[in-house]
Amino acid sequence: MTNKDQGGEIREIAFIGTGVMGASMAGHLMDAGYALSVYNRTRSKTDALVKKGAAWRESAGEAAASADAVITIVGYPKDVEEIYLGPGGIIERARPGALLIDMTTSSPDLAVRIHEAARHREIRACDAPVTGGDKGAREATLSVLFGGDERDYERALPVLRVMGKNIARFGGAGSGQTAKLANQIIISGAMLGVCEGLAYAQRLGLDAEELLNCVSGGAASSWSLLNYGPRILRGDFTPGFFVKHFIKDMRLALESALSAGISPEGLKTALSQYEKLSERGGAEDGTQGLYRIYREEARAGG
Amino acid sequence: MTNKDQGGEIREIAFIGTGVMGASMAGHLMDAGYALSVYNRTRSKTDALVKKGAAWRESAGEAAASADAVITIVGYPKDVEEIYLGPGGIIERARPGALLIDMTTSSPDLAVRIHEAARHREIRACDAPVTGGDKGAREATLSVLFGGDERDYERALPVLRVMGKNIARFGGAGSGQTAKLANQIIISGAMLGVCEGLAYAQRLGLDAEELLNCVSGGAASSWSLLNYGPRILRGDFTPGFFVKHFIKDMRLALESALSAGISPEGLKTALSQYEKLSERGGAEDGTQGLYRIYREEARAGG
Repeated sequence: MTNKDQGGEIREIAFIGTGVMGASMAGHLMDAGYALSVYNRTRSKTDALVKKGAAWRESAGEAAASADAVITIVGYPKDVEEIYLGPGGIIERARPGALLIDMTTSSPDLAVRIHEAARHREIRACDAPVTGGDKGAREATLSVLFGGDERDYERALPVLRVMGKNIARFGGAGSGQTAKLANQIIISGAMLGVCEGLAYAQRLGLDAEELLNCVSGGAASSWSLLNYGPRILRGDFTPGFFVKHFIKDMRLALESALSAGISPEGLKTALSQYEKLSERGGAEDGTQGLYRIYREEARAGG
Repeated sequence: MTNKDQGGEIREIAFIGTGVMGASMAGHLMDAGYALSVYNRTRSKTDALVKKGAAWRESAGEAAASADAVITIVGYPKDVEEIYLGPGGIIERARPGALLIDMTTSSPDLAVRIHEAARHREIRACDAPVTGGDKGAREATLSVLFGGDERDYERALPVLRVMGKNIARFGGAGSGQTAKLANQIIISGAMLGVCEGLAYAQRLGLDAEELLNCVSGGAASSWSLLNYGPRILRGDFTPGFFVKHFIKDMRLALESALSAGISPEGLKTALSQYEKLSERGGAEDGTQGLYRIYREEARAGG
């Protein structure tokens, strides 16, 4: 067994999923000196990285085949399942001793299944979803919520530190996803409050900008209010974080909470409001688009 | 007509309502050199101020009778209605030209009614509810949300500046209350998210303190999370802000929003969860007590 097989130093990384987040994160890894191979469903989104020296691969499995570590950050749990557990996928092709890090926000149960499937092939799998958005990815200030074995955490840390700042391990496989879902539950409530409060203020004829100034330093303050409040007031609903992805996260969180015996009524309400927004064509909006639901209702009513 | 009758300088202030907030605010006014007369339903709560030199009065109306300005901060809209519009109340006894400032969080419609009733007696009434809690009152850093005529705002400003830092006028009578209700709507969502997210994390066996550390700097961050998160995790549900008062505010906000044609589903959910908490004996808890609803459900279910 080589040192690499036992879980040695990471030199070559396969990076799967080079969307808004992934492209920045992969770029930082290259800057830090890692050798990168890349795969993305839409090939053109890897162009900049390939130009920079990354090697293009024809599939996730192929990228994984030669790597010490595999990092994935894709769209939905079904995508995660396919690239890891599907035929010719990462679990099938990765080398024994390889470290697999899924940074997609995905299902805790699926993370456990992947961990188990990997273990049977002497591959180490863990989950490390992130918060901090495109800005955090660009500036390498993401928070990373890690779930997996302690020794895999130690091994992953130098790599994770290239992409993020606040890094914590929450327990075994799946616990990173659970922590991320808790984070999304907290945000779902904040977004309800911000969108409803601002819609109410505008509907009642208040100067909402003045309101924002006046309450931003007080008990109503939040990242959501400070970041999305101004965008809402100038009618900017372009995505920092897509409604469709937030809906995915909230569905995962609701499912997980309900099966744990918790009935998160606020989360249920947020999800149902966002689903309404999505049905009305807002799936590609940023999450601050929720405000439009209330604005339109007020218009229809008044 | 004396200068005082035309709305002159404020020297003597009647201060009605010396609870946790009012007592601090009245103290600052005395420190700033205003002559104070005080009234409170529970007389003992004025003791410290009287010792300091304030004059005790037997009713709100009696306190108002000799004052240039009257400041009220009491419990519920029915209390506001009684002390202003009731027999022997403030409107009946205040002098022409007096400035009445209600700092209770109360109904926008009631604020307009008081303003009108006052106007008929050549008295100036305005609403100026605050945010910032007992800490803001103690440190004179409250945000003050003013509704009333521009010239009354100018006249009130030196007095308000003694008690608060961020002071803004939102329009005519009632608009201060509307702005405050918007603030409370924003907070209602944040509290849902914080309590549900932390209950979920704990139920799923995560180290919730680690979670708090890790997500507090990111998109889930809020005043509610930073201030109530740690209290929740150490089981401290003592009131900064009472559940019963938050319920009052949310009911006012919901009524106001619905009559304006907005259907704030998040606010409805928050109110119904807090009402559940109140029915279970949590009315005198702090608002972070909402967490207990989810903890108890999880226990009952699991």
